[in-house]
Amino acid sequence: MSLPAWEAVDGERLQENIEVNGQFGHVETESGRGRTVLPGTFANKQAREYLVEQLRLAGLEVRIDPVGTIAGRYEPRGVDPDAAPVAAGSHLDSVPYGGIFDGPLGVYGALEAVRAINRADVDLARPIEVVSFTEEEGVRFTNGTLGSLVASRKVEPEAMLARTDDSGETLGSALEQIGFAGEDDIDATTWDAWLELHVEQGEQLTDADAAVGIVSSIAGIIRCKIEIDGRSSHSGTAWMDDRTDALVAASELVTTVERKGRELAARDGGETVATVGELEVDPGAVNVVPGHATLRIDIRSTTYANMNSIMSSIEAELTRLEAKRDVETTLDRPYDIRPIRMSDRCRVGFADAAETVGARGISLHSGAGHDTMRIADVTDGGLLFAPSERGISHNPEEWTKWSDCTDAVRVLTDALVRLATE
Amino acid sequence: MSLPAWEAVDGERLQENIEVNGQFGHVETESGRGRTVLPGTFANKQAREYLVEQLRLAGLEVRIDPVGTIAGRYEPRGVDPDAAPVAAGSHLDSVPYGGIFDGPLGVYGALEAVRAINRADVDLARPIEVVSFTEEEGVRFTNGTLGSLVASRKVEPEAMLARTDDSGETLGSALEQIGFAGEDDIDATTWDAWLELHVEQGEQLTDADAAVGIVSSIAGIIRCKIEIDGRSSHSGTAWMDDRTDALVAASELVTTVERKGRELAARDGGETVATVGELEVDPGAVNVVPGHATLRIDIRSTTYANMNSIMSSIEAELTRLEAKRDVETTLDRPYDIRPIRMSDRCRVGFADAAETVGARGISLHSGAGHDTMRIADVTDGGLLFAPSERGISHNPEEWTKWSDCTDAVRVLTDALVRLATE
Repeated sequence: MSLPAWEAVDGERLQENIEVNGQFGHVETESGRGRTVLPGTFANKQAREYLVEQLRLAGLEVRIDPVGTIAGRYEPRGVDPDAAPVAAGSHLDSVPYGGIFDGPLGVYGALEAVRAINRADVDLARPIEVVSFTEEEGVRFTNGTLGSLVASRKVEPEAMLARTDDSGETLGSALEQIGFAGEDDIDATTWDAWLELHVEQGEQLTDADAAVGIVSSIAGIIRCKIEIDGRSSHSGTAWMDDRTDALVAASELVTTVERKGRELAARDGGETVATVGELEVDPGAVNVVPGHATLRIDIRSTTYANMNSIMSSIEAELTRLEAKRDVETTLDRPYDIRPIRMSDRCRVGFADAAETVGARGISLHSGAGHDTMRIADVTDGGLLFAPSERGISHNPEEWTKWSDCTDAVRVLTDALVRLATE
Repeated sequence: MSLPAWEAVDGERLQENIEVNGQFGHVETESGRGRTVLPGTFANKQAREYLVEQLRLAGLEVRIDPVGTIAGRYEPRGVDPDAAPVAAGSHLDSVPYGGIFDGPLGVYGALEAVRAINRADVDLARPIEVVSFTEEEGVRFTNGTLGSLVASRKVEPEAMLARTDDSGETLGSALEQIGFAGEDDIDATTWDAWLELHVEQGEQLTDADAAVGIVSSIAGIIRCKIEIDGRSSHSGTAWMDDRTDALVAASELVTTVERKGRELAARDGGETVATVGELEVDPGAVNVVPGHATLRIDIRSTTYANMNSIMSSIEAELTRLEAKRDVETTLDRPYDIRPIRMSDRCRVGFADAAETVGARGISLHSGAGHDTMRIADVTDGGLLFAPSERGISHNPEEWTKWSDCTDAVRVLTDALVRLATE
């Protein structure tokens, strides 16, 4: 009798894949081995070509959709080709000066799982798809999860292909140039289930001494942009009473957002967060009272009502500031994703797999967004975390021990076997 | 018997000088006729050459000091050449997109006064110097009042010549290139008195329906730069309780500075102001908790104790923020000028002149800094304001009616006669 598939996981091969991938777009920094792999760039072309090669070497049939999402299909003899496949994967693009695990661990972890399943010669009921979505990070053409938005049928590919970067280049033209403007259809609504392995980007696993995190929900995200118009004036000649200082108004808003975030976090065990990450002041000179301020706010929670409660506080604060400080304000809300629960079936699959493999798993929520939040809307979705050293991510210092990578891929492998043999 | 000198003031000639000067570095804008005349640029060379020509046409003897400050000496026959001169003037440099009156009104107003005095053939006891100081605005090489710092012997010329702009060019090299690296000594400590005419850059004259403002004191200025170090983290995965958000700390400081400024202004009739004009956030991304913030603060008052009281509040707030928010802070105080009172002799000279001329004058303080704050430290100094429409300055919309310019120059002329005949 053969080994269980998870025992066939080859940690060294996984490490090699991740390290080779980490060389594409490599950036030298004092603090570690980083990479910059924006979608449609030469580094991204190299990363894609290496993935396609690795998928084919493993015997998978490769398809590429119009926005460049790549899928490799594992359909061993005896599997019903019409059965809905189980899919797994993540993304290969990075933020500027990102780490080598964020994304690639999920793609090459899924590929290694399939290689292990193949080596163990497991009898499957369903095909398995290994998937790498285009532009999860959202640095160049969109706000992120581009490929999974298209695959989950939320957005037409044409709308995405027309999106431009800061230089005016379209995604369509960038993909043509690197040879990844495909014609295949990758349709997540036809998948039986979807599993994503990702680094935690937090410290809960380390704090709990756990090998894997089984995600219960992915927090929703609301982003808003607020403009505050006051009146710029001379810092020496404009009396305090005659000022309409946009920065003072903005500062009151910043403290309100934080206070409200803390209040809700105290009530829901920390699952609500609110951040003012950007504040720009115009004209921004030491001797000029600021006439204009722009803020960008990011609100997340596993409870959509909490997110809306913070939005209501922001709106009330803007009304108060207009009355009290005579400023004019505008609020734009370009990004609004509800929290999404992972399917019970996938969570149980991960939990049973962790037990089988002997890896300690804990349940937790994800504050970061992932492609899974798009896919879990159209099929059963599951998200598994591997530990992140010191919680650092989007940074060359991002690190996950190779043995932790292997353990997490073992859990993924066993969960895939469970789902694909059902 | 001849006319009194102030009646010989030629408003059209004054207007022509200011308009010609306003063409150098002219910038087209929707809102008015602006100019950008940074020291040592081609526009500045043109402005200087035109001034030298106009000084010589009026029969003045031109001298240029090592930092490019220009003085034209009016010494009619019969005047004791060894008598300490009375000096008057201002500056020709501008901020980027500045107005045409800020500076030039004082320089060409002084020249027109001398031309009127000459035409009226007034018997003087002292020579008169018409002066244009280098870089009053402080945009390119220094924090401002460069020429008057050197002329008042507060700084050695060599130290200023070595100052560089953002591109690394020195003041010395820039002056050589435009042919204004002089070798003469312009020494304000030898002046009997100094008078500066300047636009108000505020609305007190308009509000009081006055023709001229006789400045009692120039507010002192303290500028400080504050760095707040927190820890940047992921806006989705860093819990509210685990954050060290530099922007929230900075926002609390901003509101403290404003509150304290208002408190003191309420007690001293509005003569204290405090402004946070710059706030920069690092890294400044919507999905990153800010790890660093830089603020620049400008504090002004006619009472030095009030300025220090605000500084104490800032220091106390930084201590509180370090304790409450676990941030690290640094405070740098690169600029510290005490308030300075104008001399009684010059104020009385202006007041008597206003009465003679029939121009309504009011007493007020100056919230803006001027070359006079440097010169009044080493000799009797006086500062006279002409009205600014809507108080707008440092902006192409800056405007003073030509008839208001003429009225103010008449007052300046009569005051100069009073001082130079004593």
